[in-house]
Amino acid sequence: MNPTEDPTSSSHAQPVNHIQWIGSPDSGFLRLLDQTRLPTEEMWIDCRTVDDVWQAIKRLSVRGAPAIGIAAAYGCVIGVQKDGEIALTADYLATSRPTAVNLFWAVDRMKRAAAVSRKPDQSSAEVCKTLLNEAIKIHDEDRAACKSIGRYALDLLRELTGEDLRLLTHCNAGALATGGIGTATAPMYLAKDLELPITVFADETRPLLQGARLTAWELKRAGIEVSLITDSTAATVMKQGRISAVITGADRIAANGDAANKIGTYPLAVLAKYHDIPFIVAAPTSTFDLHTKTGDDIPIEERNASEITNGFGKPTAPPGIQTFSPAFDVTPASLITAIVCENGVIRPIDATTVERCIRGSYGEGL
Amino acid sequence: MNPTEDPTSSSHAQPVNHIQWIGSPDSGFLRLLDQTRLPTEEMWIDCRTVDDVWQAIKRLSVRGAPAIGIAAAYGCVIGVQKDGEIALTADYLATSRPTAVNLFWAVDRMKRAAAVSRKPDQSSAEVCKTLLNEAIKIHDEDRAACKSIGRYALDLLRELTGEDLRLLTHCNAGALATGGIGTATAPMYLAKDLELPITVFADETRPLLQGARLTAWELKRAGIEVSLITDSTAATVMKQGRISAVITGADRIAANGDAANKIGTYPLAVLAKYHDIPFIVAAPTSTFDLHTKTGDDIPIEERNASEITNGFGKPTAPPGIQTFSPAFDVTPASLITAIVCENGVIRPIDATTVERCIRGSYGEGL
Repeated sequence: MNPTEDPTSSSHAQPVNHIQWIGSPDSGFLRLLDQTRLPTEEMWIDCRTVDDVWQAIKRLSVRGAPAIGIAAAYGCVIGVQKDGEIALTADYLATSRPTAVNLFWAVDRMKRAAAVSRKPDQSSAEVCKTLLNEAIKIHDEDRAACKSIGRYALDLLRELTGEDLRLLTHCNAGALATGGIGTATAPMYLAKDLELPITVFADETRPLLQGARLTAWELKRAGIEVSLITDSTAATVMKQGRISAVITGADRIAANGDAANKIGTYPLAVLAKYHDIPFIVAAPTSTFDLHTKTGDDIPIEERNASEITNGFGKPTAPPGIQTFSPAFDVTPASLITAIVCENGVIRPIDATTVERCIRGSYGEGL
Repeated sequence: MNPTEDPTSSSHAQPVNHIQWIGSPDSGFLRLLDQTRLPTEEMWIDCRTVDDVWQAIKRLSVRGAPAIGIAAAYGCVIGVQKDGEIALTADYLATSRPTAVNLFWAVDRMKRAAAVSRKPDQSSAEVCKTLLNEAIKIHDEDRAACKSIGRYALDLLRELTGEDLRLLTHCNAGALATGGIGTATAPMYLAKDLELPITVFADETRPLLQGARLTAWELKRAGIEVSLITDSTAATVMKQGRISAVITGADRIAANGDAANKIGTYPLAVLAKYHDIPFIVAAPTSTFDLHTKTGDDIPIEERNASEITNGFGKPTAPPGIQTFSPAFDVTPASLITAIVCENGVIRPIDATTVERCIRGSYGEGL
């Protein structure tokens, strides 16, 4: 597959650059967009200590697995500025979100970079420079992965549905969750750059409203035409013929292609099939877990009742009501038209095609 | 069809009696449960003037088409207590919710009752007594219609799915919307009375959360086991085998059986079909509009953006975001297993069976 050509440099669908290193390696700092203040305020946090970075991750000022990893990598540079040593900083940052795989992976990579470059009479400034280069590399690689996903996804969408992109997405698999143009949102940014006609419906995504708070915000900011709907309205817009394809991210993909994602994704896949609309999953290879055989083996976290009963600062359900609030649901591979990762497009989806794509290399595809 | 036997008088699943006349015909008043304070406070409003009733309807302290009609009928009695005349009161009450058909129907019926019983030397106390009897009759008839719907629905559910009732419902087609045990909730109250095993999942029903605020409240209060879920979680509980049938109300049913109901009903019908689960609509005959040929002819009201973007007292979406927020969706008859009204069960559903049932009489069925 030959991915869509690079957009021109006069690109006007720039995603928000929400993770920024400001200044020199040995005295600079990390600037983060505070996502907890979105969608009403665009506030930035300057992290000048390791604890600032730890708090920003903990408080969800920065969220989304790739974005957390990138922020932690820059955090390691700040630690070395003060201590000259990386080990304590890295171990401390790894405790900010105990289940985020990308976080552990990023700080380990920073530790390795420090170890490999160690020389007897190295100055602190030199170590900082080495580590900042490594953090920038992690950031750049994620940016490249997003762009590659976007190119493959856009080509696929144009093949499946023609030039008129009328997309529906759920939750936030966007720029705000990554170091680049997101995963599910990646073809949206590229289409906008190429001046293709594109409209997006964003599900608000109960209970935590990531679609309303984050996806609607970042797409509107990038000049992409986006309409916000309740999760229950998706079926109506499909029935009205206003959706040419559904595209979502994934939190974990099993070896057979079954995909766990934010609760509400599975019903979209059923509805897409009923309305004969392609259903695409866009996710980096790091999301795949080949040790998990099928979706039945993916453990599903149950969330606190208060997210449903008291999610907006006041009670909206009777006291003591029983709730059932899984964070994710599993969409079986049979309902997924294609999975797009930075290595290419997986279609048809089975254990063989999944493995072949994951073990492939950038840009090759299948 | 022979409906389920009456529950014993020691019934323990009493729905809240939220519309009450307190005192004598010529000096009594109307007591209403203030639904705007639910689910956290059980506050009652005593309406001693016509304006109190008008305000209660306007402010949604009482809502649901049958419940509004009943409240307005009692309101007419209050008007006659003060004025001796019904005409002005009736016309004024009719302006409280300009689109509620049951409201117009109820005040017209009260006007007719006053005209028919008029005698030259009638005392004001006698007129009040006549009118209170008419209001009680309207209330009783609605109570009976709910019970009849409940019996037919319960028999149907037991036939389709056996004794173990694991129901999913959407929005509030409950006691709080009627003068009795509701429509979709009617078989739930009757099953509880008969000590049949019953569990209910209630969709929270975005954007206005009637499922969380009203259905969860009234079922919990009646001792019926109910769990609250986000609308997006319905597909997961179906997939897990925890739902034996879906039952909802309807706002308007076309001549061919297509049913308009609160947004989010149509996707439930698609999901029920995919998971091979019966999908039942329960609604009184007054909901049917035989002049509307199909669901395509039902006009769908679009709601204000703020219900999505600012529904909980603080903004949850970016300022100026475009929204699409239809109040209702239409479920085609082909996705509905059966429609239950007070006259019986419509199954299969087509223009002929719908018309035959609507023109039938109480308890006869098809």
